[in-house]
Amino acid sequence: VTQKAVRLTKGEDTILLAGGLPAPELFDSEGIAAAFQRVLSDRRVGDHLQYGVPEGSHELREALAGITTRRGVGATADRVVVSTGSQQAVDVVSTALVSPGDVILVERPSYLLALQLFALLRARVVAVRCDAEGLDPDAVEAAIRRHRPKLIYTMPTFQNPSGRTLAAERRAAIARTVEREGVYLLEDDPYSELRYDGSSVPPLAASAPEQVIYVSTLSKVLAPGLRVGWITCPSRLAPVLTAVKQAKDVHCSTVDQQAVARYLGDNDLDAHIRRLRRAYRPRRDGMLSALRLTLGDVAQWTTPDGGMFVWVTFGLPCDTGALLRAGLDAGVTFVPGENFFADRPQRNTLRLAFTCEPPSRIHEGIRRLGSARHRLCGAPRG
Amino acid sequence: VTQKAVRLTKGEDTILLAGGLPAPELFDSEGIAAAFQRVLSDRRVGDHLQYGVPEGSHELREALAGITTRRGVGATADRVVVSTGSQQAVDVVSTALVSPGDVILVERPSYLLALQLFALLRARVVAVRCDAEGLDPDAVEAAIRRHRPKLIYTMPTFQNPSGRTLAAERRAAIARTVEREGVYLLEDDPYSELRYDGSSVPPLAASAPEQVIYVSTLSKVLAPGLRVGWITCPSRLAPVLTAVKQAKDVHCSTVDQQAVARYLGDNDLDAHIRRLRRAYRPRRDGMLSALRLTLGDVAQWTTPDGGMFVWVTFGLPCDTGALLRAGLDAGVTFVPGENFFADRPQRNTLRLAFTCEPPSRIHEGIRRLGSARHRLCGAPRG
Repeated sequence: VTQKAVRLTKGEDTILLAGGLPAPELFDSEGIAAAFQRVLSDRRVGDHLQYGVPEGSHELREALAGITTRRGVGATADRVVVSTGSQQAVDVVSTALVSPGDVILVERPSYLLALQLFALLRARVVAVRCDAEGLDPDAVEAAIRRHRPKLIYTMPTFQNPSGRTLAAERRAAIARTVEREGVYLLEDDPYSELRYDGSSVPPLAASAPEQVIYVSTLSKVLAPGLRVGWITCPSRLAPVLTAVKQAKDVHCSTVDQQAVARYLGDNDLDAHIRRLRRAYRPRRDGMLSALRLTLGDVAQWTTPDGGMFVWVTFGLPCDTGALLRAGLDAGVTFVPGENFFADRPQRNTLRLAFTCEPPSRIHEGIRRLGSARHRLCGAPRG
Repeated sequence: VTQKAVRLTKGEDTILLAGGLPAPELFDSEGIAAAFQRVLSDRRVGDHLQYGVPEGSHELREALAGITTRRGVGATADRVVVSTGSQQAVDVVSTALVSPGDVILVERPSYLLALQLFALLRARVVAVRCDAEGLDPDAVEAAIRRHRPKLIYTMPTFQNPSGRTLAAERRAAIARTVEREGVYLLEDDPYSELRYDGSSVPPLAASAPEQVIYVSTLSKVLAPGLRVGWITCPSRLAPVLTAVKQAKDVHCSTVDQQAVARYLGDNDLDAHIRRLRRAYRPRRDGMLSALRLTLGDVAQWTTPDGGMFVWVTFGLPCDTGALLRAGLDAGVTFVPGENFFADRPQRNTLRLAFTCEPPSRIHEGIRRLGSARHRLCGAPRG
């Protein structure tokens, strides 16, 4: 059913609060089309259709190193490996650093597709306690000492699924710990540029550049269909990550890489991101106000400063797997929380995405969700 | 040094006989550019920039099922999973079917990047004896009984690196064996349409469709930079292969998938492949005649009916790793044979590619190779 909910993208009347999809009406289709056209009318087009190098085109790595540096993580092209979205970045890094049976520490809850990937790698996944400010540094330190993990996987900013952001002082504490303990930390950062409130918090990689591998993607800020993600790593890891990338799929589409490099050269991505922020902020606000109106008596939820997701926890017993079936019947989708737990799932949770529907439909979607919940689980007691 | 040889693509005077690169001057750049332009000027362009489904776009899977069916393997779109080249197809299939410590049977020699991938999976790789006609069916059967492999990996047509083709009666025998023993066989078929002599041999998947997973790519017949490969599998495997593909990188570039589907709809790929065959056949012939002229006294080599590669075995002791250094100094590249062995390498072997240089430069390249060998290893005795 979750598969069905995430895949549903065409139902005209179904309101999509499941997948973390960007709003398609905000894509810079013209700019992207122009970039492809320039690449494909270039006299070097034969080069762009030929095999490329596994780490990715130099032009694109330069541009991605620039983006990474502007986010506070000093990067150079020789420490960047291009990947098929950040999902493949996580695959490449974890394949390189983790052997079957090794421990990976994750947040509780954590990102669904990362958990599926770690299961394929036969890693032992250990979830670490989180609260409203994200990972608890003491719990991280205790888990490192107890489990000797090969990798810590975290999405510290506007986390998928919780929407939470790890506070700056906690980042500093965790950075010190991984440096002292010599543990690698994989910082997955797809969302940090989609900030609607507050000011940006430096990535963990800025504080512990020798132990933190930083991965990101253009999927949320440009277009996911292009599948351009990247890894920024300590110099010593670049050769092994490049070799793993090569063994997995040789390299990413050279045409797409050149077109994205061209796009980044010809356009102001930051201006585009400001447009996205202006569009998404009222969607987040609309979702939060609809939640107050509809579920105020029966649930709690996170209040994200950015990103795409709100995480809802029901106070009453409510199996959100069953609720999804009722939601689909009522014409609204979401992702049941059980998918985001490596260990015993909290079945009274769910993830909502607020980016790919306009505020009016978000309101209606939450109303439908509230009715479905009421039919399924009844009214709050006293 | 091998890395350097394979990556060398820009040296003006260096003659490239290393990588299996298609001839870039033969790319249908105009047709491909037109296909991208149609996709990017489509009013549905927002759909093409959005997330897609992990198994790949329906239009492209329909087209690839058609190509597979015309090669003799009855296929439907619901049994096709799109991948980033055939390399990722091999990754997805082997990740789904093989656990760490399981045995994979391979040919001796076998494809370098498949061996690297199987090492990452922590599989136990067992090489099976091959002769001029490819895998020995009796040796395959004996190895199945002895090692109980989870997968047999083979490239039966114009194999990389040997150029050899598995004879039809051997295919039938191996197909019967894998059906009887219930073993999965992964048939990697990037080259079969590049045939210069003789008539086509049916894929193994045609004889044992429930046990053979057939993977192929458009890299050699359209353009490698687009990274479009695919898996055709028995129906029961489609869901698990799709889930593995999703965990690895969510899905392939939707823009590239739509452009390639468009290209295949608007153009005659078979006519393009006939042009490739006409261009590559004299290159193969030129390489074989240059080898006779230059290395006739000191080496033997395969005579491939198609594909891209000739496999050379020196009669005298000759470390082709050392020879590559001398070759690079003399301005010619190739791949030392040691890279293609899962077990004890035959160091007196090397792989030559004949597709990405014109016949005159192939002649000159083999001349340089012969001189380098003579300087390094001396004249034949007696």
